[in-house]
Amino acid sequence: MVSRVIPVEPFDLVIFGATGDLARRKILPGLFRRMVAGQMPPESRVIGTARRELTDAEFRAMADAALSEFAPEADRTPEIRATFLDRLDYVRLDALGAEGWDELAVRLRPDCVRAFYLSVAPTLFGGIAQRLTETGLATPDSRIVVEKPLGHDLASARALNAQLARGFSERQIYRIDHYLGKETVQNLMAIRFANALFEPLWNARHVDHVQITVAESIGIEGRGAYYDRAGAMRDMVQNHLMQLLCLTAMEPPAKFAADAVRDEKLKVIRSLEPIGVAEVAERTVRGQYRAGNGFASYAEEAGNPDSRTESFVAIKAGIANWRWSGTPFYLRTGKRLRARLSEIVVVFRDPPHSIFSGQNQALHGNALIIRLQPDEGITLMMTIKDPGPGGMRLTEVPLDMSFAETLGGSGALPDAYERLIMDVIRGDQTLFMRGDEVEAAWAWTDPIIAAWEELGTRPAPYDPGGSGPEDALMLMHRDHRRWREIEA
Amino acid sequence: MVSRVIPVEPFDLVIFGATGDLARRKILPGLFRRMVAGQMPPESRVIGTARRELTDAEFRAMADAALSEFAPEADRTPEIRATFLDRLDYVRLDALGAEGWDELAVRLRPDCVRAFYLSVAPTLFGGIAQRLTETGLATPDSRIVVEKPLGHDLASARALNAQLARGFSERQIYRIDHYLGKETVQNLMAIRFANALFEPLWNARHVDHVQITVAESIGIEGRGAYYDRAGAMRDMVQNHLMQLLCLTAMEPPAKFAADAVRDEKLKVIRSLEPIGVAEVAERTVRGQYRAGNGFASYAEEAGNPDSRTESFVAIKAGIANWRWSGTPFYLRTGKRLRARLSEIVVVFRDPPHSIFSGQNQALHGNALIIRLQPDEGITLMMTIKDPGPGGMRLTEVPLDMSFAETLGGSGALPDAYERLIMDVIRGDQTLFMRGDEVEAAWAWTDPIIAAWEELGTRPAPYDPGGSGPEDALMLMHRDHRRWREIEA
Repeated sequence: MVSRVIPVEPFDLVIFGATGDLARRKILPGLFRRMVAGQMPPESRVIGTARRELTDAEFRAMADAALSEFAPEADRTPEIRATFLDRLDYVRLDALGAEGWDELAVRLRPDCVRAFYLSVAPTLFGGIAQRLTETGLATPDSRIVVEKPLGHDLASARALNAQLARGFSERQIYRIDHYLGKETVQNLMAIRFANALFEPLWNARHVDHVQITVAESIGIEGRGAYYDRAGAMRDMVQNHLMQLLCLTAMEPPAKFAADAVRDEKLKVIRSLEPIGVAEVAERTVRGQYRAGNGFASYAEEAGNPDSRTESFVAIKAGIANWRWSGTPFYLRTGKRLRARLSEIVVVFRDPPHSIFSGQNQALHGNALIIRLQPDEGITLMMTIKDPGPGGMRLTEVPLDMSFAETLGGSGALPDAYERLIMDVIRGDQTLFMRGDEVEAAWAWTDPIIAAWEELGTRPAPYDPGGSGPEDALMLMHRDHRRWREIEA
Repeated sequence: MVSRVIPVEPFDLVIFGATGDLARRKILPGLFRRMVAGQMPPESRVIGTARRELTDAEFRAMADAALSEFAPEADRTPEIRATFLDRLDYVRLDALGAEGWDELAVRLRPDCVRAFYLSVAPTLFGGIAQRLTETGLATPDSRIVVEKPLGHDLASARALNAQLARGFSERQIYRIDHYLGKETVQNLMAIRFANALFEPLWNARHVDHVQITVAESIGIEGRGAYYDRAGAMRDMVQNHLMQLLCLTAMEPPAKFAADAVRDEKLKVIRSLEPIGVAEVAERTVRGQYRAGNGFASYAEEAGNPDSRTESFVAIKAGIANWRWSGTPFYLRTGKRLRARLSEIVVVFRDPPHSIFSGQNQALHGNALIIRLQPDEGITLMMTIKDPGPGGMRLTEVPLDMSFAETLGGSGALPDAYERLIMDVIRGDQTLFMRGDEVEAAWAWTDPIIAAWEELGTRPAPYDPGGSGPEDALMLMHRDHRRWREIEA
């Protein structure tokens, strides 16, 4: 089955930081794939900018190398590559200085959708936004794309929003959380709202609890300086885990449209039970990996022997509204864990009574597992009759709801960035975070971080390659529950 | 995965009518497969009886031929066959006379489970039961197995129950409806009662309607004399469709045990809205196939040019209880239809509101399809996101819930008779009809048949190879619904 492609308007996409990692890994290969799929109008241009001195040809050679590394084999015929590279330009530009802006203005066309992708350090966001306004390059229809970290706390997030707002209205600002571009995350919404089956069960009466895990096997790699200032809470919980929690917990929006969806997400964030000094010991666990299994400790990697930054955090969150009161949302994320795994697990309550008891082991509740990484997929854990002519023996089986095979699309799911970039061009903000969401998320996480600081506790040490500190297991065990195994 | 086998006690199984079709096609091959599976204790014997003069060796030769025809290839090694055949005896016996009973008594052993399978014309049920009692062959623990037709109407069903009751208590009587032995029918109960997911949806609030179809492609074949007196209502609706309706509609029994389950089924039958002269035209459709597509007409096949017997019937049934009021159960069955197909379709209500509208076609309700024939399986029709980076397009996909592949049991589901015979030996009546159920079913169907007779209408003619008379389509169309296609 060929995926039908919704064409977009011709566009000029300006990438700030075009020589950077994200451009090479995600933005350029994503655009290439969209061109192969026939979604990129031939008149469209991609204009890379950075401080480095490059000719158009040199930039194209760099992009070509990126395709070799990150675009799928099958698409790499010389003709298609050439066609794509031909659409790339490069402008040397000093983001905060004067150089290059006139040249950029020359390359932009008046009658195209215009998007500025700020793939640069967040300290540059405000300055570039200001320069785009001053130079008149930002038209009332232009779009600006930014990505985490969007602030370090509520105050800095507010400041950033204010800077962006000087040149751009909210409907022009696209705050990417690439988890929202994942196919299965969107399918979560289809499953909830396009079927009559799940929504009646999607509440505290039928859902025992929800687990959201974003586990990484890597350490902090080269990001020590940033990470040691941020920690897992700012780096992962405030954005990615919060967004996944919102999509899982939100009320049905009246429309699948940007503000309808984001209003509902915002309501969820604002309904989160506050966690302050009184609750933080009971409701949160911080961890930091020590050396082991051939890996250096976090402190070593961060170059900060006395670091108290958490590389792992687990939180028992509560949502104080009619739908979810009494159903905890357990969040956890960490580095140097057993595997790279991101998933949302909706665990339904056990049946109130087993009519099959005596013949069988205790029944387990059903669970819906929405896996984002490493392989996207949705699985429903069901109990069925063990086939065979003897009695009514039950067995638990995973039911694959990903449908990739049915739809003939196995392995060909679009990358989150592909989708999100096209949504920017299309002007669809549904899968992007609104400014007030980002602020509300900080408003919930700030007091937790403040409480940790106030109590002065150290993160619990944990071994590399495991599932985090024992305290995280205890967090659920106290409630007679347990985490799903972290397995690739 | 090897199916775990629950061993049974050593048994003597006496088959009355052992030279008949059911013995050859189902009973002997079923026992053989159970032996191969290791479930038949070596001391067990199968004693065939019939009027025909046969030696043990001749009976074994007949059984051997039946295995060649009806047992799976893989099992047919000479050694296993020989072992099985060695467990067979034959006694020539006059069911209503004196001959053979002494000989049968000699073959039966006192310390074995004893079961009498009456695979004979129903006119003989009473006589054989009586003879078993008189001769003392029926011990207080013996089991007697009978199969449809169990009466022609309420009065005759009562008389039959009374005859059986003279020599056997209810817990000794096994009334087979082989549809209850189907793997997917039992799985319907596992899915409903062993998961927390479906039961909350299993009511009039969430289920729009239920369709139960038992379609046959064959005509009445050699059964004309019987069938023309019975018709589809007595032959199929009173037993098979009624049983499927009961299992679909029943309240959760407190235990998966014979009387707990049968009490709930009985309550369903007794809650059926009566259909009499006032309702029958609106609620029922009768059909009779005419000649066409190279097939003779029903009347020709039945040898009764003026026959008014229905070879097709469709009924809009209602269940007047809290769970189902307002959710019709549409039943249909017929001969010479497009394909052989038996299925239960639970159609859920549409979502109350489509948040995706404007971007998509109207959403369809979900449906759970429990297929009994030709291939057993359970399918959930779901709406999901069409994978791809363009907007939120939805698509409807079938989700296979049969799990045969997961369990490695593809194609190896046990035949209904295999399971049911072992249940007889095991003394488990859960999947057998109790006498009061049979009577209650007649009490519902009798007034419908009487109303047809009173109104004197002829069955609507329909073409062989189609889906029955147009009136059957109208029956649902009036309610803005439609049947699923009859497709193999």
